[in-house]
Amino acid sequence: MKKQKKIKLVTIGGGSGQYVLLSGLRDLKKIEITSIVSMADSGGSTGRLRDELGILPPGDALKCVLALSPNREVARKILLTRFKNNSRLNGHNAGNMLLSMIAQYVGNFPDGIDALGEILNIKGRVLPVTTDKATLVAELADGEHVYGETAIDIPKTERKKIIRTFLVPHHTDKIKVFPPVLDAIKEADYIIIGPGDLYTSITPNFLVPGVVEETSRTKAKIIYVNNIVTKYGESDKFSVNDFVKTIENKIKNKLDFILVNNQKAKPELIKKYKQQNAEFVKINSKLKDYGRKYIIDNFLSTKGEIARHDHVKLAQAIDKIIK
Amino acid sequence: MKKQKKIKLVTIGGGSGQYVLLSGLRDLKKIEITSIVSMADSGGSTGRLRDELGILPPGDALKCVLALSPNREVARKILLTRFKNNSRLNGHNAGNMLLSMIAQYVGNFPDGIDALGEILNIKGRVLPVTTDKATLVAELADGEHVYGETAIDIPKTERKKIIRTFLVPHHTDKIKVFPPVLDAIKEADYIIIGPGDLYTSITPNFLVPGVVEETSRTKAKIIYVNNIVTKYGESDKFSVNDFVKTIENKIKNKLDFILVNNQKAKPELIKKYKQQNAEFVKINSKLKDYGRKYIIDNFLSTKGEIARHDHVKLAQAIDKIIK
Repeated sequence: MKKQKKIKLVTIGGGSGQYVLLSGLRDLKKIEITSIVSMADSGGSTGRLRDELGILPPGDALKCVLALSPNREVARKILLTRFKNNSRLNGHNAGNMLLSMIAQYVGNFPDGIDALGEILNIKGRVLPVTTDKATLVAELADGEHVYGETAIDIPKTERKKIIRTFLVPHHTDKIKVFPPVLDAIKEADYIIIGPGDLYTSITPNFLVPGVVEETSRTKAKIIYVNNIVTKYGESDKFSVNDFVKTIENKIKNKLDFILVNNQKAKPELIKKYKQQNAEFVKINSKLKDYGRKYIIDNFLSTKGEIARHDHVKLAQAIDKIIK
Repeated sequence: MKKQKKIKLVTIGGGSGQYVLLSGLRDLKKIEITSIVSMADSGGSTGRLRDELGILPPGDALKCVLALSPNREVARKILLTRFKNNSRLNGHNAGNMLLSMIAQYVGNFPDGIDALGEILNIKGRVLPVTTDKATLVAELADGEHVYGETAIDIPKTERKKIIRTFLVPHHTDKIKVFPPVLDAIKEADYIIIGPGDLYTSITPNFLVPGVVEETSRTKAKIIYVNNIVTKYGESDKFSVNDFVKTIENKIKNKLDFILVNNQKAKPELIKKYKQQNAEFVKINSKLKDYGRKYIIDNFLSTKGEIARHDHVKLAQAIDKIIK
């Protein structure tokens, strides 16, 4: 009997969106997961460690590793709980500390991620899109610059629309892609983009030279997981078509499958998001077609007070596409 | 209704013996645990980190913290599994890396232990007996010196009996006790010593100035958990009386309760220990009495291929003593 080849899934993203996606993908059979993760995070514990220790930001990679671990629930409790009782440590979590330590000790960040993945016994692998330190910059419609992922992520005041973003390297004249990233994209059967903040989690991956080139010519089918809500200062009033157009322009390729949530949340949740100038993404009456397949379904998680994808529903929909 | 005061238990030891003891004590009600742990470990991962990073050896404190955690089983899996796939990391475990990192980051080892205890949600606290780095030295009957806990622990060749041990500080002219250790001993209702290797896990605690003085005048009842097997090069052919005499001489006080295992192991296990020049500790026909109470029972763990105390049986016996 011929051994069945595993389907190669490559996810590209960052932040809690990747955590949710990978949490679901972890349990699918006969797949091989490579998660490519943005290195632009500058906020919170991750940003502090980055600045204090001169390392790459550990937070996004940590979340991906945790998502892929069979011990996810307890590992999260141990590695994501924030310290509260020590003034120097407050706000950090053990996972960021551990990954930073291992990466420093072995001398490079990708090997540090692999080692953490080894002891968490993860299914798949997690690749930083680059190992060069850099600052994410957003250029607004009025020509203003916003410096750093955190400042872009959380607008301090009302501001103009983001017209483009770019990465400014800290120590090199050119940011280099981590080479296995390009190999993974080249060999992928499916590439899954999103969910996640458009300019602070998703597109920073495509700002690293080589990634767009590889994605634009890939033979893989591309699946895009559309966000559930818009984000103030990033994707205000975006409809599904706006997201699709923005992503396609960025990756210089057409999306094959677009997963769209059609489940409305409870009024309290809608109200809560409205206070943050965010709203549930509108599904256009005429969606961009020409071979794009839309899977419109209820992907909303019913847990918690946050508009987030249900990782099981998401994985089931992806499983249907790939098999 | 008057609030019932908790019984203050102080354990003194190190190594896997402390892990077993604390694993059982964790689940007793109405007690307050303080674990005092030796800082003499120089072997394996712990020794490498100590030497490379110039920190205190993390291994023994880590094991105590894990033992006291409600998430012990999974936490062990994550934090005690040794790395295998990275030449620089091989032999280390994530727990040693994490504790070392936190201790370095907060600037002192006791706060590092507390922080790790915080995220592992431990019951009780773990105190290093000293925060000064030191080398354990054994003086043999022929005047020879053996340097370092590892060399004392695992004799390379046959050697004379250990007649005394002492700690040689690395950076100070005098080793100082970590002050909360003395407070804990002073306020204890019960002090539990052992189980553990006599000269490499138990007595190094009493080599730190102040500890013996405090233990000798304590009003606490002292419980000694006698080892199950003798140890080559440390306690060869020791009977229960030999252990009791050695400990009493060291702590300059009388033991009140002595827990002694009377369960013989399977012949294979006895044979295995015989190959290591170790044997099950003999119970003397006349035990040292004068107010010492011996609790002679089956304390042998039936799990695994090692002569170890069963943590539940041990805790139950201690619970009977203290209540």
